[in-house]
Amino acid sequence: MRDKERFLKQVEFITEIDRLKQVLRNTILLDASRKENDVEHSWHLALAAMILAEYSNFENLDLHKVMKMVLIHDIVEIDAGDVFVHSTIDREEVKEKERKAAERIFGLLPLDQAEELRRLWDEFEEGVTAEAKFARALDRFMPILHNYKTKGLQWQKLGVTAAMVLERNKAIEEGSEILWDYVQNMVREAVEKGFLKER
Amino acid sequence: MRDKERFLKQVEFITEIDRLKQVLRNTILLDASRKENDVEHSWHLALAAMILAEYSNFENLDLHKVMKMVLIHDIVEIDAGDVFVHSTIDREEVKEKERKAAERIFGLLPLDQAEELRRLWDEFEEGVTAEAKFARALDRFMPILHNYKTKGLQWQKLGVTAAMVLERNKAIEEGSEILWDYVQNMVREAVEKGFLKER
Repeated sequence: MRDKERFLKQVEFITEIDRLKQVLRNTILLDASRKENDVEHSWHLALAAMILAEYSNFENLDLHKVMKMVLIHDIVEIDAGDVFVHSTIDREEVKEKERKAAERIFGLLPLDQAEELRRLWDEFEEGVTAEAKFARALDRFMPILHNYKTKGLQWQKLGVTAAMVLERNKAIEEGSEILWDYVQNMVREAVEKGFLKER
Repeated sequence: MRDKERFLKQVEFITEIDRLKQVLRNTILLDASRKENDVEHSWHLALAAMILAEYSNFENLDLHKVMKMVLIHDIVEIDAGDVFVHSTIDREEVKEKERKAAERIFGLLPLDQAEELRRLWDEFEEGVTAEAKFARALDRFMPILHNYKTKGLQWQKLGVTAAMVLERNKAIEEGSEILWDYVQNMVREAVEKGFLKER
């Protein structure tokens, strides 16, 4: 091996991120058996990106970049924990924790790769590029699908209303108008079926 | 939406594959707390592909394809279950179950996407192309890393020896000579440290 130090750093990173499998989210699996973890969520987003890419608002979307982005976007939560979308927590404090986590965890890698992953993560967080907007749309879409398919289990448990779902997730429209239409329909149906309170 | 039927098929597929989060493997998480599931394994492979691509035996490796391949390679196990690498089960019977599962599960998608995912899965299974060889190398590498890092927990529990690990996983060399060197070193060290019996 030409550069053993480089390889060992890469293995250390791959080892460290195993811990993301233990970071639980508020979303419940579709069979309602248990909470989902960040790794399961990230995998599901990558699959959703592959299958739903045609509905992004953007021509020439770089799907490979979207997939890399969603696969790494939650790694910082190894240190910073998951924050529920409707939480009233201080978001600046969370962002600071996440920035420190990004430095520590991506920093385990050789410099070129640390910088590449940090750029991807920053791009996702900033939400400005086509790829970031579509990745963020999927990140918001999937929990709504889970909630709808589990008859609003977590919506009810956590006191979430239709108005809150629509307000908190309207950024979906920036990534995919078609997904946003579908979400609005789901929310309407969820209210009609009694899965979700109107307000 | 132009084609609602297409969209609903895609959502059905995305919903169905949530079940892969419940398919457990023999590999133990690195904190030794519980078994890993197929989704966690697939995510970890995609990350390993991103980080270790430079060690593949091939110039011009299509990393995007490798990532898609590893993310979907275990989906058939929703119906067919996970088979332990050292199991003595009838492999032809397993292959037949997996082929049926591929038809059913990828068949939930619109035809063009069903065919695309089926082609990717077939390519992985056949192990002939550069991308398939590298993907398969990672698929074999990760459980060995897990075993080494958990001091041989599952090797010992399941009566696996160094000779078995080297024999069962030598296909790693076809995807990455550098990873195979590293694996041989890990196995040697595992024996020296008492994590793994010689034979």
